Amino acid sequence: MNFKLLIQYDGTDFHGWQVQEKQRTVQGELERAISILEDAPVHVAGSGRTDAGVHAEGQVASVILKREFDCGKLRAAINGNLPRDVRVMEVTVAPDDFHARFSAKRKTYLYRVVNSRVLSPFLARFAHQEGRLLNIAAMQEVANFFTDTHDWTAFSSIHSDSETRVRTITEFTILEKFEERFGAKVIEFQITGEGFLRYMVRSMVGTILEVGRGEKDFDTIRTAIASGRRELAGTTAPAHGLTLIRVDYD
Amino acid sequence: MNFKLLIQYDGTDFHGWQVQEKQRTVQGELERAISILEDAPVHVAGSGRTDAGVHAEGQVASVILKREFDCGKLRAAINGNLPRDVRVMEVTVAPDDFHARFSAKRKTYLYRVVNSRVLSPFLARFAHQEGRLLNIAAMQEVANFFTDTHDWTAFSSIHSDSETRVRTITEFTILEKFEERFGAKVIEFQITGEGFLRYMVRSMVGTILEVGRGEKDFDTIRTAIASGRRELAGTTAPAHGLTLIRVDYD
Repeated sequence: MNFKLLIQYDGTDFHGWQVQEKQRTVQGELERAISILEDAPVHVAGSGRTDAGVHAEGQVASVILKREFDCGKLRAAINGNLPRDVRVMEVTVAPDDFHARFSAKRKTYLYRVVNSRVLSPFLARFAHQEGRLLNIAAMQEVANFFTDTHDWTAFSSIHSDSETRVRTITEFTILEKFEERFGAKVIEFQITGEGFLRYMVRSMVGTILEVGRGEKDFDTIRTAIASGRRELAGTTAPAHGLTLIRVDYD
Repeated sequence: MNFKLLIQYDGTDFHGWQVQEKQRTVQGELERAISILEDAPVHVAGSGRTDAGVHAEGQVASVILKREFDCGKLRAAINGNLPRDVRVMEVTVAPDDFHARFSAKRKTYLYRVVNSRVLSPFLARFAHQEGRLLNIAAMQEVANFFTDTHDWTAFSSIHSDSETRVRTITEFTILEKFEERFGAKVIEFQITGEGFLRYMVRSMVGTILEVGRGEKDFDTIRTAIASGRRELAGTTAPAHGLTLIRVDYD
């Protein structure tokens, strides 16, 4: 049977999603936990990798098991074998041809920035701190320009092995909230797209923050996209501010 | 000069507030961080101890320094010497006779319970999980009874060295919220009082949860209060669900 898993993890202590020799990874922990139940090695397919330190509130994975399981019991059994920083939130039976990666239509990421001089310990694991003043209107202008189909070469890793670097961003919103409990303004960048290159989201956010601080202007961003010159884009924002919040399927 | 500090900490990796030999404590970290600036040993007085694993969003401390400091710069300098799981959120100049403990009028604690079969990694550090069904109305009845002046002997540590175990609870509310992001119902117990005995809040919450599960009835609670017999009260709820959220002063 083919099972679809909805997964959350605090990425702080993981070397990312993908199995790596001698490293603690989310996929590795899941495969270990489920293979105990299946009594055989299993392959857990994720919707895509997340880098070391990146979190997930809505990662999706699929796994084909020979044994029969009730969904609720399977969830409890897997969680019983997992450390507490990763949890299977839901298990459902999926059609045979469902594959978490190949069937995925859209993904949504959230990048949290604490725009304050002081960073609450309750936000420190999940948000990047930026103490300087940010020009939200200037950042919004870039976000609007990003919401389109572009060649994202300037915003991706040189090591990306994708055939094409053209991707479509369908939504890019910037939301400011004052969080009374943490005495801080939190800026949430929410980005939806049909696919992303490696480091693309963090590179977009790092670039937008440079615009917000007045260190880069809109024309440079346009030139970066048009030319594919990576040195024109901004730095890659730190991993711990990023969370994969949703993967959509038809 | 006498400074008032507003402090937040993630209690997970601390052996509580109070300085202890060879243990990592919040008071110990603060005294170390501030003594570097004062270039002499300092004493940081907290509004009260918190136990190992208990968090704070609104702990208050006072410290008398010989050197002169601007409040904003003092905050930044202290935070520069602190690990990221404790932060000074605000520094203000206090009257000479202000003392974080002796001047405190009321404290408010929040105890978070995730009432769900599955515990999101994002709540696991700050909430206690209770998978069973809870009778909120029965719990509310006990909370209303608790909102009064009682002798809390049955709800305190046998090692408590307080002269009297009479304390007044001025507010005890139970709030249910469905947290969509974490696929779970979160129950928040918010408790305000003029003072608390050691383990009192966690013991009240542990007892109320037993009532919620139908394991203890209201009459037993009344008898526990009236007789001071500790075995009639419930178990002490785990530390990590508890957060000190506010200390009030005149």
